[in-house]
Amino acid sequence: MMFEVKTVKETFGIIEDNFSDYDLDGEWVGIHEALDRVVCKDIIANEDMPPFNRSSVDGYCVVAADTFGVSEAMPAQLKLVGEVGMGEKPGFAIKRGESAYVPTGGQLPSGADAMVMMEYSEDFKDGDIFLNKPAAPGNHIVYKGDDVKEGTLVIKKGRRLRAQDIAILAGLGYEKVKVYKKLKIGIISTGDEVIGIGDKPEGAQIRDINTYSIDSLSKKMGMEPVRFGIVKDVYDDIEKVVNESLESCDITVVSGGSSVGTKDVTVKVIESLGKPGVLLHGIAVKPGKPTILGKAKGKAVIGLPGHPASAFMIFQVFVSRLAKTMEKSGDGLHPFVEATVDINYPSNNGREEYLAVSLREGKDRCIASPVFGKSGMISLMTQADGFVHISRGSEGLNKGQKVKVNLF
Amino acid sequence: MMFEVKTVKETFGIIEDNFSDYDLDGEWVGIHEALDRVVCKDIIANEDMPPFNRSSVDGYCVVAADTFGVSEAMPAQLKLVGEVGMGEKPGFAIKRGESAYVPTGGQLPSGADAMVMMEYSEDFKDGDIFLNKPAAPGNHIVYKGDDVKEGTLVIKKGRRLRAQDIAILAGLGYEKVKVYKKLKIGIISTGDEVIGIGDKPEGAQIRDINTYSIDSLSKKMGMEPVRFGIVKDVYDDIEKVVNESLESCDITVVSGGSSVGTKDVTVKVIESLGKPGVLLHGIAVKPGKPTILGKAKGKAVIGLPGHPASAFMIFQVFVSRLAKTMEKSGDGLHPFVEATVDINYPSNNGREEYLAVSLREGKDRCIASPVFGKSGMISLMTQADGFVHISRGSEGLNKGQKVKVNLF
Repeated sequence: MMFEVKTVKETFGIIEDNFSDYDLDGEWVGIHEALDRVVCKDIIANEDMPPFNRSSVDGYCVVAADTFGVSEAMPAQLKLVGEVGMGEKPGFAIKRGESAYVPTGGQLPSGADAMVMMEYSEDFKDGDIFLNKPAAPGNHIVYKGDDVKEGTLVIKKGRRLRAQDIAILAGLGYEKVKVYKKLKIGIISTGDEVIGIGDKPEGAQIRDINTYSIDSLSKKMGMEPVRFGIVKDVYDDIEKVVNESLESCDITVVSGGSSVGTKDVTVKVIESLGKPGVLLHGIAVKPGKPTILGKAKGKAVIGLPGHPASAFMIFQVFVSRLAKTMEKSGDGLHPFVEATVDINYPSNNGREEYLAVSLREGKDRCIASPVFGKSGMISLMTQADGFVHISRGSEGLNKGQKVKVNLF
Repeated sequence: MMFEVKTVKETFGIIEDNFSDYDLDGEWVGIHEALDRVVCKDIIANEDMPPFNRSSVDGYCVVAADTFGVSEAMPAQLKLVGEVGMGEKPGFAIKRGESAYVPTGGQLPSGADAMVMMEYSEDFKDGDIFLNKPAAPGNHIVYKGDDVKEGTLVIKKGRRLRAQDIAILAGLGYEKVKVYKKLKIGIISTGDEVIGIGDKPEGAQIRDINTYSIDSLSKKMGMEPVRFGIVKDVYDDIEKVVNESLESCDITVVSGGSSVGTKDVTVKVIESLGKPGVLLHGIAVKPGKPTILGKAKGKAVIGLPGHPASAFMIFQVFVSRLAKTMEKSGDGLHPFVEATVDINYPSNNGREEYLAVSLREGKDRCIASPVFGKSGMISLMTQADGFVHISRGSEGLNKGQKVKVNLF
């Protein structure tokens, strides 16, 4: 079966069409364990926040009308009828001509409709308080429900929870939150030349870098990696491990050896697993053209290039897209840095390119340098801080041009 | 004892002076557990990478001189003396007039000094190979040690490990890496009005938001939080829990109730713990002026404002700085977004300000909107995506101005 190479846009479309309705279970977790988890249903406020009218300053509550027109020369003289303690429900109300002390965060007694800050008061300890600044109704008060009204949407389904989201959940009294289970991703390395990282290479063997870079990237993206280790370039062996991974994992990633033979075996295995099988074979992108995406038993199977730097970039761009689609977490911000390119970089016409760059702080800007070296160098990955997307048909980058650097 | 309010710069200086020599133990962890951990000693390559001369293409190895001047019209005719398998050590050498097939990643036979790509060859299966493109010595070869030379610095002490760093460790055969133990941070909430998040507020009680936002932020920053819960505004109670936290934690954070009394108690407790005690009380910054930093038993104790949004911002700016200083992880990139402000925002002269903003994608730029609302609103935190630093003496922000937004 022959496959046409797909553009990046077509690839994203194939991911959307095939995996946006992926059925991922939810689970309840304590909010102290919910950081970076994806909420699987809208969270609605079940009460008002604050649940009472609250002062936002230390000072005196008043009926605002009592302070209209007052000044330092002519302060309002009000009867002090009480003091509100932190966390206490005031045991009294105030009316015209009266006032009471309320601390920041304290509850306003009924009858009061404004606060006058401490620094505009004088207390001669004779039972009265003198206030020398006028207040409009509502001054320095957060009314019940001002912050969050009962029934409003607080956190939308698909949000990856940040510390500030967990704060509002705590404030509203949620001890637990329902989130999607972490996507499980099975990682398989293939190649007759690939050996374990603890082994000493003999001849031209190379250590299994991909298992570890993909393991780390998966965690960074909020997935739960399962490492299946190294498999020889043998159809039956690869098929067996891919099936094992499909049993328990939502995504299976096979990073091929760099030999032509290995790639064929991965395609054949994906084809053998049932419909629809291989969805695409080859993306018009540099690096990483020989990427494979398949679907079997409703789950995703990916063939990545064997070369570590290519596998890394393809994972960043396409597997992260796939994961976000499967867990419906579309609305996050993707951190990037705007930087100035320090050299001319001609592009490959006709296919998009993801160019690794290193970043440094310039005098008044951030500077991006494309990371160069001989093809196949691993150390280039470590020098890179992020990547620049160069679109098809672009002439490349010009020295001094501003670019958006997506951070690794 | 009276304290002068410090500027942000002075505060960073105090942190540097007091905690840059903090003694944090190291531990060995498997590289699959090392993501986001801070390396505590320089990592030097203990071997060459690659450990052999490697082809970066599928093709034929040659003595380059045999191809000088060849063309499609006049190809070089070389004797095929063998084929190198993936991962294998070639069992033969080549000399002038000879060639052999080598796959991408395969080892070059001795004698060969260049590769000619497959597509420039013709094989009539008669024992000879015809090559129609000249190659210069070194073409398509990654020499032994080209990627990383034995003895070179691969990862510097203080680096927070990223996936691409773990990749190179795998490639060099490191199964484990020595990293600093995670900083342990004790979290204490104080305030008579503060109740647990599972409790229903009575009167004007408020739920303990700070424990959960600080817990999540600490994890995000790579620390290991220990939650000590809520303590009443009583000297003995706070002293007891702070001492308990000091026993096991590197940093202790006390977020005060918003009452004036609470703040005094935290200062007194820090003073009581021994020298040097309180290092600063008050930073000229908005929000969060009433921040306290102390040192006792060699460890850091911090008093944060009780208001969740203020505590959150102070933690982002100052506690993260403290943590980086204590674990010597200075060299990381801090993700930010360059955005255009959509309104005029006048600043407070004389103190620096950290202004929370929300971000949205505009037509051809990213737009930052200051997050406004009544003082004390929690929902503002959730709307915010990051913050803008407004320096002292600045007039504030002008509509259309470009700003650097540090992401939460």
